[in-house]
Amino acid sequence: MSAPAPTADLLLPDLAAIRAAHARIRRYVVRTPVLNSPALDRTLGAQVYLKCENLQRVGAFKARGACNAVQSLDAAAARRGVATHSSGNHGAALAYAAQQRGIVAHIVMPENAARIKVANVESFGGQVHFCAPTIAAREMVSAEVLRATGATLVHPYDDPAVIAGQGTAALELLEDCPDLDVVAAPIGGGGLLSGTAIAARGVAPGITVVGAEPANADDAARSFASGRIEPLAATTTIADGLRSSLAPRTLHALRAHVAAVGTCSEAAIVAAMRLVWERAKIVIEPSSAVVFAAILEGSLAVAGRRVGVIVTGGNVDLDRLPWQA
Amino acid sequence: MSAPAPTADLLLPDLAAIRAAHARIRRYVVRTPVLNSPALDRTLGAQVYLKCENLQRVGAFKARGACNAVQSLDAAAARRGVATHSSGNHGAALAYAAQQRGIVAHIVMPENAARIKVANVESFGGQVHFCAPTIAAREMVSAEVLRATGATLVHPYDDPAVIAGQGTAALELLEDCPDLDVVAAPIGGGGLLSGTAIAARGVAPGITVVGAEPANADDAARSFASGRIEPLAATTTIADGLRSSLAPRTLHALRAHVAAVGTCSEAAIVAAMRLVWERAKIVIEPSSAVVFAAILEGSLAVAGRRVGVIVTGGNVDLDRLPWQA
Repeated sequence: MSAPAPTADLLLPDLAAIRAAHARIRRYVVRTPVLNSPALDRTLGAQVYLKCENLQRVGAFKARGACNAVQSLDAAAARRGVATHSSGNHGAALAYAAQQRGIVAHIVMPENAARIKVANVESFGGQVHFCAPTIAAREMVSAEVLRATGATLVHPYDDPAVIAGQGTAALELLEDCPDLDVVAAPIGGGGLLSGTAIAARGVAPGITVVGAEPANADDAARSFASGRIEPLAATTTIADGLRSSLAPRTLHALRAHVAAVGTCSEAAIVAAMRLVWERAKIVIEPSSAVVFAAILEGSLAVAGRRVGVIVTGGNVDLDRLPWQA
Repeated sequence: MSAPAPTADLLLPDLAAIRAAHARIRRYVVRTPVLNSPALDRTLGAQVYLKCENLQRVGAFKARGACNAVQSLDAAAARRGVATHSSGNHGAALAYAAQQRGIVAHIVMPENAARIKVANVESFGGQVHFCAPTIAAREMVSAEVLRATGATLVHPYDDPAVIAGQGTAALELLEDCPDLDVVAAPIGGGGLLSGTAIAARGVAPGITVVGAEPANADDAARSFASGRIEPLAATTTIADGLRSSLAPRTLHALRAHVAAVGTCSEAAIVAAMRLVWERAKIVIEPSSAVVFAAILEGSLAVAGRRVGVIVTGGNVDLDRLPWQA
């Protein structure tokens, strides 16, 4: 008796799909450097290798998934454009990816979005559609854009092509550092960690893959434990890129390939963010700091091990740094 | 009739000496990445490649020169240790370099030096000798340390071995980006720019090498124009790594190999520093920003060209950023 085929909403890329994504997006993304800081290692008690996706196009790993989704479209679909709703890095990344292919990206954003985020999307030629700042309004405007344009919706994480693109960062990390014991990434909707886990365990089956998220948005830890999508109770974390729930698809990937999900306090996120700026001399956003914060608080046990960390992004308001009163 | 031999104080490394330095220090320094940011390029009006020495050991290119000087010592001299007076990156770099060779570094610092700078030197095992915050006291304590220990003085820039070490950053930059039109670096005492110019024009004789410094510390621009060491009038610039005068040796190198010295305002330094943080997502110190500032103010004319910039360091007090009131 053969196992039932996975339903569409559990479809995930395999290592070959991630390798294909890598070949497809190579011209459009940066092969980001991997950095190590002995001073940071001493504080963390592990040898930590930072895969610097804050140095990626648009300042975040999201460029990888968006470029893979856009470059995977057939010509007819591409002509109709792409769309998403996001006021964050995925919106900018999709605008960038569309610009590279010479097609239009429709980005639905709340009318109260920060002016700098709107300008960022527009700087990549994205067409911004404003909606009232409610989920209902967002859904309505998104549906209208899709109906009017025939554009393809590119979800920020619940999409096999996006997950495959995000997994390419781990491929490069393991090419540069083949003997890692652990690979770690933050968890928002779980797209990055899904792609990371499939890539890392595909290339190095014995490797341990772990994730981290804010205790204030610990839906992934609870879902990982229970095996069901647990609701996100609040969105009060400073790590604004991690205020999403897992999808069934990404929960499935995490349950199959991830060893542990750590959590961390808000204070530890701010302290870890500052620590990385000071020691590694790179600008990282709060969402990127959760892995370091979980290590500092002992929620991820990696003492003495060689740990690769996907540093997810560097988009920060330099006039309002969280360690300043 | 042959030309007179250069006097000792004009002795400079050649390309072969810089290559030898590179082989000598490779194990002790990071091969730092070269970054490009299209958003930064648009603002600067040129294609700019950032050689990220802020990501170097001790957070500054100074690790290169210090390691070359220390690794060049014979065994007897090494046993007696090394010494310098510096409250900045060179002091920390010399402590690091000595630690790598397992010898002692004596660092003379004013007793009012920032606690974090003292701690930084000590974190690399450096032995700090405090002096009153005057030049006379510094000279006296330094002389006493040298007499008592027999240590070798390693000057921050007026030393052929230090200059050769600093030149290794440009060697790597041109390996990674062989088709640059221009290479640019900040000027304090001129050691970095001397090494950079000798390396770059050795590897690529047609390349243009330029320097930049604060208008508030424009002794290099005036000395470059007059051909004599012109005094540094004030040390009021925020670019605290650039508050040094040229030495005859470094002026000689600049006059032989450098095409132009640009200057920039204090406001432009702060604006350029913030611009690089925001666009390139790296932490750079004010001294590293002068090249970008001089481009922004039109003092260095590089429009449309491919420009490699040595980003010198990233040691900044994150609690007191200069663009914040």
